[in-house]
Amino acid sequence: MDDYKNRSYGAVEIGMKGKIGIVVVDYQLAFTDARYPLGGAPLVMRGLDNTARLLGVARAHGVPVASCFTAYKSERDMPHWKITAVREQFRHDHPSSALDPKIHDPDYDVVVCKSGPSIFFQTPVVPYFIKEGVETVIITGCNTSGCIRASTIDSFQWGFRTIVPEDCVGDIEEGPHRDNLRDVGRRYADVSSADEVIAYIQRSSR
Amino acid sequence: MDDYKNRSYGAVEIGMKGKIGIVVVDYQLAFTDARYPLGGAPLVMRGLDNTARLLGVARAHGVPVASCFTAYKSERDMPHWKITAVREQFRHDHPSSALDPKIHDPDYDVVVCKSGPSIFFQTPVVPYFIKEGVETVIITGCNTSGCIRASTIDSFQWGFRTIVPEDCVGDIEEGPHRDNLRDVGRRYADVSSADEVIAYIQRSSR
Amino acid sequence: MDDYKNRSYGAVEIGMKGKIGIVVVDYQLAFTDARYPLGGAPLVMRGLDNTARLLGVARAHGVPVASCFTAYKSERDMPHWKITAVREQFRHDHPSSALDPKIHDPDYDVVVCKSGPSIFFQTPVVPYFIKEGVETVIITGCNTSGCIRASTIDSFQWGFRTIVPEDCVGDIEEGPHRDNLRDVGRRYADVSSADEVIAYIQRSSR
Amino acid sequence: MDDYKNRSYGAVEIGMKGKIGIVVVDYQLAFTDARYPLGGAPLVMRGLDNTARLLGVARAHGVPVASCFTAYKSERDMPHWKITAVREQFRHDHPSSALDPKIHDPDYDVVVCKSGPSIFFQTPVVPYFIKEGVETVIITGCNTSGCIRASTIDSFQWGFRTIVPEDCVGDIEEGPHRDNLRDVGRRYADVSSADEVIAYIQRSSR
Repeated sequence: MDDYKNRSYGAVEIGMKGKIGIVVVDYQLAFTDARYPLGGAPLVMRGLDNTARLLGVARAHGVPVASCFTAYKSERDMPHWKITAVREQFRHDHPSSALDPKIHDPDYDVVVCKSGPSIFFQTPVVPYFIKEGVETVIITGCNTSGCIRASTIDSFQWGFRTIVPEDCVGDIEEGPHRDNLRDVGRRYADVSSADEVIAYIQRSSR
Repeated sequence: MDDYKNRSYGAVEIGMKGKIGIVVVDYQLAFTDARYPLGGAPLVMRGLDNTARLLGVARAHGVPVASCFTAYKSERDMPHWKITAVREQFRHDHPSSALDPKIHDPDYDVVVCKSGPSIFFQTPVVPYFIKEGVETVIITGCNTSGCIRASTIDSFQWGFRTIVPEDCVGDIEEGPHRDNLRDVGRRYADVSSADEVIAYIQRSSR
Repeated sequence: MDDYKNRSYGAVEIGMKGKIGIVVVDYQLAFTDARYPLGGAPLVMRGLDNTARLLGVARAHGVPVASCFTAYKSERDMPHWKITAVREQFRHDHPSSALDPKIHDPDYDVVVCKSGPSIFFQTPVVPYFIKEGVETVIITGCNTSGCIRASTIDSFQWGFRTIVPEDCVGDIEEGPHRDNLRDVGRRYADVSSADEVIAYIQRSSR
Repeated sequence: MDDYKNRSYGAVEIGMKGKIGIVVVDYQLAFTDARYPLGGAPLVMRGLDNTARLLGVARAHGVPVASCFTAYKSERDMPHWKITAVREQFRHDHPSSALDPKIHDPDYDVVVCKSGPSIFFQTPVVPYFIKEGVETVIITGCNTSGCIRASTIDSFQWGFRTIVPEDCVGDIEEGPHRDNLRDVGRRYADVSSADEVIAYIQRSSR
């Protein structure tokens, strides 16, 4: 037994309740297309496929979906990134900023351009979810050790019940993927699966 | 060589520049006093001592210091914490909410009560640092895998240069401490030391 | 007919719906006690009395109440106020920062210290209302042409239905009170009364 | 003498200091082109011309410029607007969402799509200005009694020195234009002119 558990970390389960909203973080070509320096990691491609499956069900049941990509005008208006590829290629007019068509429905999804790691940071996603009466937020996207971690923290601190389906998020290596799910699962969010979320959507719309 | 490095993560160093501001996250008795369920972890006590040393120099040079604790009125106004001890004891009127006297100077520090993991989340610390003209933020406090990770992400996404002196932050176990410094050091912040920050303060005030 | 109306301003009524939350803005002694330079304006005292009446009903029905005061440690951590009395007296340890006992129930209200004009600006009130599932926000307090205007804009932009009971807010002079209700009533909020809100609370709890 | 002045409102002047940043609020065709229901008010057209003149000088001196328009995907992701024209026409794909070419330089300006009245509300403008080291914010755009009032409050509460050049902002009628400049000039911002800001830019770059 680890010392976090001894000290009551992870002792409470959150659960899905009320209306859900789904956020889809940074499934843009920069991360899903292997032609780009940060793109095409196997865990990310697995997350993309499971998220596409989840979104198919979600859209059929009218669940609010907010999707984002990260892009800037120039290095001046971006935060102090330590990643060369982000500094050089994450631009509004760069082809790698386009959302992956596997997860994007332009007729359905609310799309925002974000500037930080978190999809909630200085974007209209929280106001949108307030207006929709969302109680539980489902986090999908990449990378687990970057923008997923940040978005999960924000969903939690804004007061939402927060669920991370493990198979809908991905990363470049499995170690940091696991480490971050461990950290957030102790504190902020339930680590779940696409199937469990799909079952909840189907159950609650009956 | 790991695959993050291959893909240009961590390739840029940020550096300290301009005016610095120091945030001191959650060095309240709940974390620094072993009588409380989350308190007294050795890495945290080490971080407390080094932070006290850093703050001594910082205050002598007029560096802005913002310190926080986490507390609520009741379970209703707190986010969905998975940690029983936080749910039960993090209260405005609980003795464990007091800042540890080792790091707190009530005549100098700006103190805020925060509600989420990040010291910047819905607190007046960003406006304070804007008014002070802060360019570089130094992150101290606990725990590395919780509120330090969240505060580091926020400092970065608000546009500040962000420095985490490794010996000024602490955690319950060393594994998550290292994992989180690895994640943020690749993306958002330089991992540094109390001595390096002290040297910068002394150098820049000459 | 004014040119705003011609252009479709104010054409839609918002209405109260779902769960309400009440914010009580700056009914601290600085504004309600005539011994202080900004205190004791007749319209403010009228607003205080009506708010007290509204809160009596609200608390009996379990409605969430968030109350705030404005205070700072020093001039350094406050924004660039143009009001001498705010610069000099709005301090954590000043007696005029205490909430007026007419509207404050320490056993019931969630109280926050705010740093800007809006009760929602960098405070935990939005997360609290998200967690409570609030759909409609009732704005009470002072001054209409200052912190009420700011709080109303924020309630609106965060996605809440927003109601300003005219007799629960007050100001130093009647002109700016009316001007600001006119501006927000065209765009963001319904201008209503304590009695209408009380009727809604009683009706919706049946 | 009015009772606000008696009570020390407006007693402190803020002044321009340090690096400035300019925000250009909602000079989109919806407000500047008389073919649209909210467009073409004479005071707005005057503000547009003076802002274009100010921006010409600002760009030549490397001053950061952030410009915004307001648009949504549908009525679902917008706040509860009371203005029919906003509900029906403020869409990403509507021609009236385009920035007026008089004030927009796509090679220079950082452009954000905002969802609320304030250009700072849930947009990356504050992080951009933090990274640029902006100390003084100049507010231009329309309407004075709507988005200018909201943006001025936010600039102030984020800790910036805030200047509103009266001839760079406009409204549908002159009454609300004056009323709102009066309210913010008492509390949050200096009411100034394009010429004064131009003189500051030229003076400070010498």
